[in-house]
Amino acid sequence: MKLRNHFAFILIFVSGFITFSCNTPHQATDTPVKQEISTAAKDPLPSWKEGSTKKAIIDFITKTTKMGAADFIPVADRIACFDNDGTLWSEQPMYFQFAFVMDRIKTLAPQHPEWKDTQPFKAVLEGDVKTALSGGEKSMVDLLIATHAGTTTEEFNILVKEWLATARHPRFNRPYTEMVFQPMLELLNYLRANGYKTYIVSGGGIDFMRPWTEAVYGIPPEQVIGSSLKLKYEMRDDGPVIYRLPEINFIDDKAAKPVGIEQHIGRRPVFTAGNSDGDYEMLQWTSTGTGYPRFGMIVHHTDEVREWAYDRDSHIGKLNRGLDDAGTYHWVIMDMKSDWKKVYTFDQ
Amino acid sequence: MKLRNHFAFILIFVSGFITFSCNTPHQATDTPVKQEISTAAKDPLPSWKEGSTKKAIIDFITKTTKMGAADFIPVADRIACFDNDGTLWSEQPMYFQFAFVMDRIKTLAPQHPEWKDTQPFKAVLEGDVKTALSGGEKSMVDLLIATHAGTTTEEFNILVKEWLATARHPRFNRPYTEMVFQPMLELLNYLRANGYKTYIVSGGGIDFMRPWTEAVYGIPPEQVIGSSLKLKYEMRDDGPVIYRLPEINFIDDKAAKPVGIEQHIGRRPVFTAGNSDGDYEMLQWTSTGTGYPRFGMIVHHTDEVREWAYDRDSHIGKLNRGLDDAGTYHWVIMDMKSDWKKVYTFDQ
Repeated sequence: MKLRNHFAFILIFVSGFITFSCNTPHQATDTPVKQEISTAAKDPLPSWKEGSTKKAIIDFITKTTKMGAADFIPVADRIACFDNDGTLWSEQPMYFQFAFVMDRIKTLAPQHPEWKDTQPFKAVLEGDVKTALSGGEKSMVDLLIATHAGTTTEEFNILVKEWLATARHPRFNRPYTEMVFQPMLELLNYLRANGYKTYIVSGGGIDFMRPWTEAVYGIPPEQVIGSSLKLKYEMRDDGPVIYRLPEINFIDDKAAKPVGIEQHIGRRPVFTAGNSDGDYEMLQWTSTGTGYPRFGMIVHHTDEVREWAYDRDSHIGKLNRGLDDAGTYHWVIMDMKSDWKKVYTFDQ
Repeated sequence: MKLRNHFAFILIFVSGFITFSCNTPHQATDTPVKQEISTAAKDPLPSWKEGSTKKAIIDFITKTTKMGAADFIPVADRIACFDNDGTLWSEQPMYFQFAFVMDRIKTLAPQHPEWKDTQPFKAVLEGDVKTALSGGEKSMVDLLIATHAGTTTEEFNILVKEWLATARHPRFNRPYTEMVFQPMLELLNYLRANGYKTYIVSGGGIDFMRPWTEAVYGIPPEQVIGSSLKLKYEMRDDGPVIYRLPEINFIDDKAAKPVGIEQHIGRRPVFTAGNSDGDYEMLQWTSTGTGYPRFGMIVHHTDEVREWAYDRDSHIGKLNRGLDDAGTYHWVIMDMKSDWKKVYTFDQ
C-alpha cells in the first residue's frame, strides 16, 4: 500500500467530514417512496427535460444499437460505467459511507470503553469532528479498521442493510437509498433495455455498495467495482468465512478507476458517467477508445434548491479538470437544474 | 507481495517445467476442428456416458431451476465457477501458459543479446530446463516479468492471440485452444441455458485467458478471474494506456480462490468444478453455503490413453485433499475414463 493511495482514500473521508456541518433541514418526511421506473415506450427518459443532453443520450443509444448502422456496437461490447457518489446518488453533506462509519463507531462504543479516552474515537463519540480529524491519516485508518476490518462478508452485509434501514439523511430525513437520482435510474434502465451492461465504478467501498445496489439500481454485486480492504479465507469451527484484514487492497479513484475497470471487466467502456475529477481518467479512458462511438457524461451539480450546487474546488466532488477538458473529449455536461424535471423519486 | 504467495505462483510454473520432457507425439494433424456444441433437446450432455455423474448434474440443474420447487435457486444466485487448467482444458505436460512464456522468451531473444549470457534466459534459449529452474524463485520472476510486464492491455491481447494461432501442443500437435474438453463445453452451455452465469476461477493469468475464453468457452472477459500483475494507467503522446508493472497483484490459487470470487462476484457460488487441491477451498466455500443446494465436482484425470492419468502427489494437478474429503463435502468425482464418451472435440 503506497502512501499516495492511502492519502487519496483518506481525502475522501476527510472532505466528507469538513462539510458535515453545512446541512439544513429540508423536506422532512419518513414516508417510504417507491422508486418508480417509467415503462413508457415513447419516452425512455421521462424525468429528463427535452434538450441537447437528453437528445445526445437518445441519439447515442439509438445509433449504437441499430443493426447494420456504421455506429453499431455488438452487445458484448456495450459496457457502461457509472460513478456512484454524486452521479447515481447525492454525496452531500458528506459521502454517505462516512455517515455509516460514524454511526458504527457509536454503536461499537459500549464494547470499547477505552474509546472514551482514545482519539480519534473520543472525538467521534463527542461529535467533535475537527478533533477527530486532527490526527490526520492515522486517525482515519484507525476509524476504518475499527468499523470494517475483522467482519466477515455475511456480517458486514447485514450491518450495512441494518444501517440503511434506520439511518436518515440529515437534510432530507429520508433513508439514504432514497437519495438516488430518478433520472439516472431511468438512464440505467434505458441502457439495459438496449443491451448495455451497467457497472458501478466508485471510490466508495465495494462492500458498502454491494448489499443494496441490485435492489436500488438494478446493478448486481458482480457489476460493482470499488475500493476494498484485503480479504482472507479461513476455516472456522462452524465452517469457512471470508473476512476483512486491516489493510487496504485497492483504492478505486482517479487513475485507478480505469485499472479497476480493466481488472474486473477486461473491456474498455463505451459509455461512462461521472461527476468529479475522481472520474476524469475513467472518462478519458472511455472517450479515447477507438472502433466504436463513445459517450462521456458529467453530472454537473447546479441545483442548490433541489440538491446542491458545487463544482470547482469543492471539498466533495471537486470538478476542475472535467470542466476544463470537456470540450477536448466531447463530454456532455449534464446540468442538473435545467436538464432534470425531478432529482429524487420523491420530488413532485 | 508476501513470499508465501510468490512461492505458490512459482510452483505452478516450476511444476510445468518438470514434466515438460514427458510428452510423446500423438494424433498429429493441423486440420482445424470446429468445437461442436450439441443442441439436441433431449440430451443436454451428449458426450457424457449415462451414469451417476451425468445423472447428478442433470438432477441438480433440474431441481434448482424448477419454479416453486423447494430447491429452486433464483437466477441471480445461479453462480457457477470453473477452474481452467485441468478442468476445462488439459494441463499436461505443463500449464499451457508456460509454453507461451517459453516461446515468448525465444521470440524476444534477438532484442536481448545479453540473454545469451544471462540466466535463466540462457538456459531457456538452449532448451536446458533444469538449469533454467536452478535459480529458483528469482529466475521464475525474471522470466515472468520479461514476458508479461511492460506490455499494454492491447499489446498483450495481440501477443496471446498470435501465439495461440501458431503454437501447437507437443503431444497432439493441435492448437492449444483445441485441447478443451468437449463434455465440459456441453456442461457450460447446459448451465447457461438454465440461467447459470459461468465463471472461470483459475490460478493462471487473467490476461492470458481473457483474449480467447469468450470464443472458446462462451465465457466473456468480465467472468474470468485469475492471477495478475499490478496495472498502471498512463497518459502517453498518442493517448492513454494501461500496462503491466513488474509486481504481482493477486495469486488466484488455493485459499485465494474464494477471495478472488468474493472480490469479483460478491456472491457465493452454488456450482463449482475443479480438478486439483488448488481448487479445494473454492469447492469447500461452495459446498458449505446454506440456503440453496450446492454442487461440487472434481474432474479426475483417469484416462492415460485419450488424455493423462494423474492425481495424488502429481507435479501438476496434485489431488490429495480433494479425494480424501470428497465424501465429507458430497463432491462428485467425475471419472474421465468412464464418464466421458469423448475427451476432446476432435476425438472420434
